[in-house]
Amino acid sequence: MHVLCLDLEGVLIPEVWVAVADRTGIDDLRVTTQEIPDYRELMQHRLAAISRHDLTLSLVEDVIAGLAPLAGARAFLDAARERYQVAILSDTFYEFAMPFMAQLGYPTLLCHRLEVDGEGRITGYRLRQDDPKRSAVKAFHGMNYQVVAAGDSYNDLPMLEEADAGIWFRAPDHITREHRQYPSVASYDRLLEQIDTACRQFRR
Amino acid sequence: MHVLCLDLEGVLIPEVWVAVADRTGIDDLRVTTQEIPDYRELMQHRLAAISRHDLTLSLVEDVIAGLAPLAGARAFLDAARERYQVAILSDTFYEFAMPFMAQLGYPTLLCHRLEVDGEGRITGYRLRQDDPKRSAVKAFHGMNYQVVAAGDSYNDLPMLEEADAGIWFRAPDHITREHRQYPSVASYDRLLEQIDTACRQFRR
Repeated sequence: MHVLCLDLEGVLIPEVWVAVADRTGIDDLRVTTQEIPDYRELMQHRLAAISRHDLTLSLVEDVIAGLAPLAGARAFLDAARERYQVAILSDTFYEFAMPFMAQLGYPTLLCHRLEVDGEGRITGYRLRQDDPKRSAVKAFHGMNYQVVAAGDSYNDLPMLEEADAGIWFRAPDHITREHRQYPSVASYDRLLEQIDTACRQFRR
Repeated sequence: MHVLCLDLEGVLIPEVWVAVADRTGIDDLRVTTQEIPDYRELMQHRLAAISRHDLTLSLVEDVIAGLAPLAGARAFLDAARERYQVAILSDTFYEFAMPFMAQLGYPTLLCHRLEVDGEGRITGYRLRQDDPKRSAVKAFHGMNYQVVAAGDSYNDLPMLEEADAGIWFRAPDHITREHRQYPSVASYDRLLEQIDTACRQFRR
């Protein structure tokens, strides 16, 4: 049995911060890990915008309540979970992600936590650990699993590098061009095929 | 967010080997980790019985097809997965366990694999790693999670010892008496209460 590590935003659900930007008009929240590779720098940029605009967790939760997983994500995930042990490795926060987990049938999610003050303002965040996606793949390797990883962005690269097989899913051209060693697919059917192919090769 | 590690057989589903003993009349398959603490010794005992009686995987699968999770297990697990990241740590085999996982909504399961020959006879097994339950808790600790573990038998003891909080669930008296440091509960409601209490104490 193999472990499949999946990114969350852009792979199974929409980009939450982009949706918040759409709702609030705060364009500074529109950038993602696809534009700013350094996650701490990206979060500093977001927290500064949040502070400038007095954004509360409850407003973000309200945006999230109107969102659903990407079309076809649940069916893909259900099929994957019949065949593999799945762990979602994300740089999002449990406070944002759990409503999506309910819609996705509560797959295992390893991510981070927000810090929220008494007035419900988002004041910071606690990264669970440094290099979290790579570390999680290492942890599964430590349990003697072979790992396939799929993601769409710079922060997925450590996970793809550490895994026994890596796959780009709907990643932008500039990222797939920079890292051509990983196959790149854009549909869930093709993603599942690539995962199955990788796992068959492990067995040989 | 905390990780909840749960044993499988006796905690969420019935003892598979005991069910096989009931169906086949092979009394040697009636012993479990509650009687033989050494798992390799127990599996040697089972494999010898399997060999003597020419037991096939398909017969075991047939027995399993007639089994369901324990009454209340799914509701408990659903409630737990809303609050915690859940990993089932079991010394069973994927070949036996996956039909139950379908009935339990595909929680993450970390267990072992059987070896089956060309005629479908169970000839051996591959332990994923030594001391698997303790190692899995260590892996979650390595990812900076605090861990609550619940089990019913000797092979759960390493998981309870390594976890930040351990709970006996429907464990026999001789085991809870030997290891009184862990609270012992017999209903899913009480189990969830104990888990919640443990996690609240972590936060202090």
